[in-house]
Amino acid sequence: MDFSTIQINEKLGVLLTKYDDFLNEHIIPLEQEAVYGSFKAALPKLNALRDLAKKEGLFAPHLSINDGGIGLSLTDFARVSEILGKSPLGHFIFNCQAPDIGNMELMHQFASKELQEKYLNPLQRGEIRSCFAMTEPQHAGSNPKHLSTTAVRVGDEYIINGHKWFTSSADGAAFTIVMAVTDSENPNPYQRASMILVPLENPGYRLVRNIPIMGDVGEDYMSHAEVKFEDCKVPASNLIGKEGGGFALAQERLGPGRIHHCMRWIGICERAIDLMCRRALSRELDPGRPLSGQQTIQNWIAEAVAGVKAARMLVLMTAHRIENEGAKAAKTDISTIKFFVSDILMNTLDKAIQTHGALGITDDTILSFWYRHERGARIYDGPDEVHKSVLARETLKKYVQTGN
Amino acid sequence: MDFSTIQINEKLGVLLTKYDDFLNEHIIPLEQEAVYGSFKAALPKLNALRDLAKKEGLFAPHLSINDGGIGLSLTDFARVSEILGKSPLGHFIFNCQAPDIGNMELMHQFASKELQEKYLNPLQRGEIRSCFAMTEPQHAGSNPKHLSTTAVRVGDEYIINGHKWFTSSADGAAFTIVMAVTDSENPNPYQRASMILVPLENPGYRLVRNIPIMGDVGEDYMSHAEVKFEDCKVPASNLIGKEGGGFALAQERLGPGRIHHCMRWIGICERAIDLMCRRALSRELDPGRPLSGQQTIQNWIAEAVAGVKAARMLVLMTAHRIENEGAKAAKTDISTIKFFVSDILMNTLDKAIQTHGALGITDDTILSFWYRHERGARIYDGPDEVHKSVLARETLKKYVQTGN
Amino acid sequence: MDFSTIQINEKLGVLLTKYDDFLNEHIIPLEQEAVYGSFKAALPKLNALRDLAKKEGLFAPHLSINDGGIGLSLTDFARVSEILGKSPLGHFIFNCQAPDIGNMELMHQFASKELQEKYLNPLQRGEIRSCFAMTEPQHAGSNPKHLSTTAVRVGDEYIINGHKWFTSSADGAAFTIVMAVTDSENPNPYQRASMILVPLENPGYRLVRNIPIMGDVGEDYMSHAEVKFEDCKVPASNLIGKEGGGFALAQERLGPGRIHHCMRWIGICERAIDLMCRRALSRELDPGRPLSGQQTIQNWIAEAVAGVKAARMLVLMTAHRIENEGAKAAKTDISTIKFFVSDILMNTLDKAIQTHGALGITDDTILSFWYRHERGARIYDGPDEVHKSVLARETLKKYVQTGN
Amino acid sequence: MDFSTIQINEKLGVLLTKYDDFLNEHIIPLEQEAVYGSFKAALPKLNALRDLAKKEGLFAPHLSINDGGIGLSLTDFARVSEILGKSPLGHFIFNCQAPDIGNMELMHQFASKELQEKYLNPLQRGEIRSCFAMTEPQHAGSNPKHLSTTAVRVGDEYIINGHKWFTSSADGAAFTIVMAVTDSENPNPYQRASMILVPLENPGYRLVRNIPIMGDVGEDYMSHAEVKFEDCKVPASNLIGKEGGGFALAQERLGPGRIHHCMRWIGICERAIDLMCRRALSRELDPGRPLSGQQTIQNWIAEAVAGVKAARMLVLMTAHRIENEGAKAAKTDISTIKFFVSDILMNTLDKAIQTHGALGITDDTILSFWYRHERGARIYDGPDEVHKSVLARETLKKYVQTGN
Repeated sequence: MDFSTIQINEKLGVLLTKYDDFLNEHIIPLEQEAVYGSFKAALPKLNALRDLAKKEGLFAPHLSINDGGIGLSLTDFARVSEILGKSPLGHFIFNCQAPDIGNMELMHQFASKELQEKYLNPLQRGEIRSCFAMTEPQHAGSNPKHLSTTAVRVGDEYIINGHKWFTSSADGAAFTIVMAVTDSENPNPYQRASMILVPLENPGYRLVRNIPIMGDVGEDYMSHAEVKFEDCKVPASNLIGKEGGGFALAQERLGPGRIHHCMRWIGICERAIDLMCRRALSRELDPGRPLSGQQTIQNWIAEAVAGVKAARMLVLMTAHRIENEGAKAAKTDISTIKFFVSDILMNTLDKAIQTHGALGITDDTILSFWYRHERGARIYDGPDEVHKSVLARETLKKYVQTGN
Repeated sequence: MDFSTIQINEKLGVLLTKYDDFLNEHIIPLEQEAVYGSFKAALPKLNALRDLAKKEGLFAPHLSINDGGIGLSLTDFARVSEILGKSPLGHFIFNCQAPDIGNMELMHQFASKELQEKYLNPLQRGEIRSCFAMTEPQHAGSNPKHLSTTAVRVGDEYIINGHKWFTSSADGAAFTIVMAVTDSENPNPYQRASMILVPLENPGYRLVRNIPIMGDVGEDYMSHAEVKFEDCKVPASNLIGKEGGGFALAQERLGPGRIHHCMRWIGICERAIDLMCRRALSRELDPGRPLSGQQTIQNWIAEAVAGVKAARMLVLMTAHRIENEGAKAAKTDISTIKFFVSDILMNTLDKAIQTHGALGITDDTILSFWYRHERGARIYDGPDEVHKSVLARETLKKYVQTGN
Repeated sequence: MDFSTIQINEKLGVLLTKYDDFLNEHIIPLEQEAVYGSFKAALPKLNALRDLAKKEGLFAPHLSINDGGIGLSLTDFARVSEILGKSPLGHFIFNCQAPDIGNMELMHQFASKELQEKYLNPLQRGEIRSCFAMTEPQHAGSNPKHLSTTAVRVGDEYIINGHKWFTSSADGAAFTIVMAVTDSENPNPYQRASMILVPLENPGYRLVRNIPIMGDVGEDYMSHAEVKFEDCKVPASNLIGKEGGGFALAQERLGPGRIHHCMRWIGICERAIDLMCRRALSRELDPGRPLSGQQTIQNWIAEAVAGVKAARMLVLMTAHRIENEGAKAAKTDISTIKFFVSDILMNTLDKAIQTHGALGITDDTILSFWYRHERGARIYDGPDEVHKSVLARETLKKYVQTGN
Repeated sequence: MDFSTIQINEKLGVLLTKYDDFLNEHIIPLEQEAVYGSFKAALPKLNALRDLAKKEGLFAPHLSINDGGIGLSLTDFARVSEILGKSPLGHFIFNCQAPDIGNMELMHQFASKELQEKYLNPLQRGEIRSCFAMTEPQHAGSNPKHLSTTAVRVGDEYIINGHKWFTSSADGAAFTIVMAVTDSENPNPYQRASMILVPLENPGYRLVRNIPIMGDVGEDYMSHAEVKFEDCKVPASNLIGKEGGGFALAQERLGPGRIHHCMRWIGICERAIDLMCRRALSRELDPGRPLSGQQTIQNWIAEAVAGVKAARMLVLMTAHRIENEGAKAAKTDISTIKFFVSDILMNTLDKAIQTHGALGITDDTILSFWYRHERGARIYDGPDEVHKSVLARETLKKYVQTGN
């Protein structure tokens, strides 16, 4: 058992084992069919697993018991998230997948009772899916002043116009939360935008296409859409939080979201290391001379294992800080894990592929899926370069404040 | 004009410009359709370009004028290859694509007159395509002793049995050249195998599947097949070269083949740098503040440009040596460029993608295709790790030989 | 305050602040004189600081209160060690410097009462210094079978013969503990050697030279000697632990020793980052345009800060495990931190130097000292490459044991 | 024989062998004494070697036959420079060492007849040494506007005031060429400074100290001084070139200077690889199991060899371009080799040291000298980061010029 598990109490340990067993027994065997085949066609099987998860008391670990979940803290859920990350299907089965989990967290805190009843509750039960429309094709996402989607208040409605992309999982979703400028004149650019819930059965909404990403058009949950809002009308009461509060909410959303992503990435690394070790032991250069005896392979395994250990500690400490001091206090930690873990993720995947030789670039292992789709890890939620600048500037700030 | 062009005489310069113009005008505009769409469906348009290439005297630059080509030396063809490499379709249009070019070189030197007339000639004219069946799923390709496909001589036929994969472009090919053990008892493992030409209209041959590679099943020329030979009979006269000469021929094939690949990779880098620069100049962080002003982006551009310059020199010198001293004398140079250039290739693609942000992971640019399909560059023709060992051992050998 | 300090209780926090203040006020100002000048000449001033440390109750934090120390746990001492690491003089002032601290730990557990009274007690009080003679010039240190120093039992004496080097701080030391083969025929090579205490006032002992290391011959505590044992006689009762137990003791010694080194390295990184930030803020490219605005510098700062955070967590967790489960259980963790932290150390120093420009390669900052003397960090206590292999093999072992 | 030697004609080949033999026979054996010992004390032996070099017709290969040299072209001299670079003493013995060679080139082109007779001629004969005072401690060298040393014309004299450092080899030099502002009001900052020759027997000149660099104070030729000019008077006719032409001359000087440095660095790499190979073959992990069988060591050797091959080609091509098109046309090539080769240099030295284990950090091999003193390679003549920006901006400029 890993050294860092010293922090795991017995009860959590039992739970983690259950998730691990479920994953190995039920989820991984479905990967070829649901990840490389048609996700849509596999939905009946996937939904059956969701039912089984509910039956076994494993569904929605992040939700309170009242809301049908297990009520795990952010730190404990992080541990679960690591295990689920070992399969691209893991989080989906337990209804704690992005972007839905982010919407749940957001709506739980900031949506009106009415919106909660109508949208949050079925979302938490896994009856519907949702998406989040923020990124725009024409503008660098890291600059809030560049947002061009607008929501104009007319009577008791908002009329939304704009062009978004990388609206993940829009295909088949029941609603989206859209980030739109409601007050373009506000001198503070961070107070210009708001978050508004838009049901997707709406004549003003159009899914332009599922964007082909690294060779996959994708479908349903496993897709990233380009969408348009064209005089799209929604009730003014669909506003989440306050008008002008969009960026504040986005920040709230990003903190735990980063924990979820990073722990999922660590799970991916664990799986990649597992595949790398098995391949190294079974592939022979000569009869009786397995690949695992090659020092280069050993270097790769060692560096991956060390990186993952370090990454896990950093993320858990960040989760701990978010829980105890809030996302704002943990700002630089959140930036740190973003670029630190994504780097380890991409290196680990790369070495696992190289260890597999020609097999590594086929879709016969799950590595190809992650190599392609997690290339985005260094880009989404702010490219690594932006987070490095954030961390550096915060580090430098201390000197300036104290007069050096 | 690039400094290394000091070696280009005026005549070659004119020719290179023609290829570059043809590429930009005719080939790149077809990429979305033929690379990300259906290659098969695009074949009529691609074939029309082949006809145009013939008309303009640009077809088959590597072939002698007698054989319908331009008669370029290996070094001059390398220059052309760099330009064609800027598009995944480049080499195909001019009928100098792998694996056909390798088969042409091989058959030109070692096939019987009869085989040349029947198979080589139409191949050179671009009327048929071919493939090369060497890699086996069960064995590490770097070890010749592991080959399990056999060709047993019975009367005036060979009966071939075996399982191959990564038989590139088998789908739609007219024939393959297969590497098979003909003398398993030979004490020298490098003299056990032979190369035999197998027409694919053959009941003993089966294309099991086009292997899904990094999300693409592929089709026709753009595919990599898993194939089986099951009591597959061919005339004994289909032997290429001598019985037991398979590995010697494979080595002959690899030398120029490495030049072709490496120059193609350099072309890919050129295109990636071009896309990176354009993106950096046009993407604005703020109005009037383009990405190109970011020092990190500048570092990436500079490192890519420097790497490509160095790589080009190394490959051209290696080509020069192969021409003047033969592939055997250039053995360590050939190993050197394999790992040196593939590393620069993957780094350059990675940075070009990162510069594009979210757009970089979509199939809206050609970068995604190469990021995925050239991941194999560090694996095929011997993984980089094997070539590093080769170079190191040859370097160390000098000390041992001189008694030092 | 750093996120990882969540584990620091209030009392320890107060103590750490005291050490930090002492370091900044008294120790750092002595660096130019004692590190780049003559350590020997600076000894009176250094000893005065040792007295001050005693007076302030900060001396020998690793020792029990009975032994004149503070009685910190390994984990708490690790925190102190990080702070002291910010100066090459830090540990020396508080009498917790290598190799003495290792000898104290060893003798505390395994030396006879008599040896403890005669040697350990004055060592703990800082009245004498000691050294540790293990590494031999002729043999790779990673292989125990290669040890050639012998100790032959004749009557109630050992007669020791052998050649050692990298016997750190031998110059001026009162005694050494030497690793010597006492049973060369033992079938288990790990049971052939013993540890024996040798007083250095001994006609059979010779300090051949202080080895010039990276431009420094060094002197006194700050030196690494080559020494010879030539029919060197010591009482048989100078044996530490059991005959044949040398390697077992060495392993015991290495566990906490690695923690001490790694936390010291982290302290070095902290100082390097501090210098890098101050330089970046004060050095101007143009009036009003400090170096700190350069994105490349920001990347370096961010990567260093992230690396240090990760390293600190890993080392503290390893310390925690050693305390709770013993050094043997923590074996792979100990190997992990060895190569993980030394890599971060060297990178951080390199970037701090580059940030300083020409100043960085002078001895006007302390960076030059560490750049040179900590280059050994990737070599001593087993080169990083050996530790990577250890970690990889342990990782792979799990698969073999469970039948995969 | 190395592949790149295809460019070496027979005559040059014979010459290179002579230099190599001279180096191995006479120079390398003096290293411990003259590099790690006292350079000054070794001067008689070094000067004897200079006489021998003259006798053998190898002295001053870069000078014309008229000037007592061999009259090699820049490209041919580059080849010699690579060989001489294998020892820190190489260039000095043949009187082609920096900074003297740069001063010779400069004065040959731009100094008055009078200055040539009085200073250049004895410099070329090796009777005196010189230095070059440009870098200032208070300002980033990459910005010309920051120069604070002034030379005020009063009558037929210049009165110079200023503070310089990294004035290499000032200790023992007969004269310096100083860069000083003569026209601080010139709107073009690149036309404010001039180069003036200052004889160092001058009451207004003071050598403040030889700066301790990485543990070495150094002396004579092997030193880097901090110097002051305090109302230092020289004849106005000591101006080199035109008033205000300082930066233009500095650029002229830098082009060939970069070639000299880069080829010297490649020579260092050759020596490091040589030492690495010998160590790998002779150091045994177990009897009969040398270090050279370790794949990690093989990787290091292969990567170093490949890097050096690439670096050599790049530098030779740049030299070729400077000769044929001038330093200005080769500007980006010159920036490219600066950062490309220094990176390979530092990596190669690092790996050679690691291969040597503990021995690698001692001064028992020459590696320690270079590890320390060539750390400056990434800093002097403009830090690598500046050259990367230059190359990137030039690359991007092409797009802007062509309207993208």
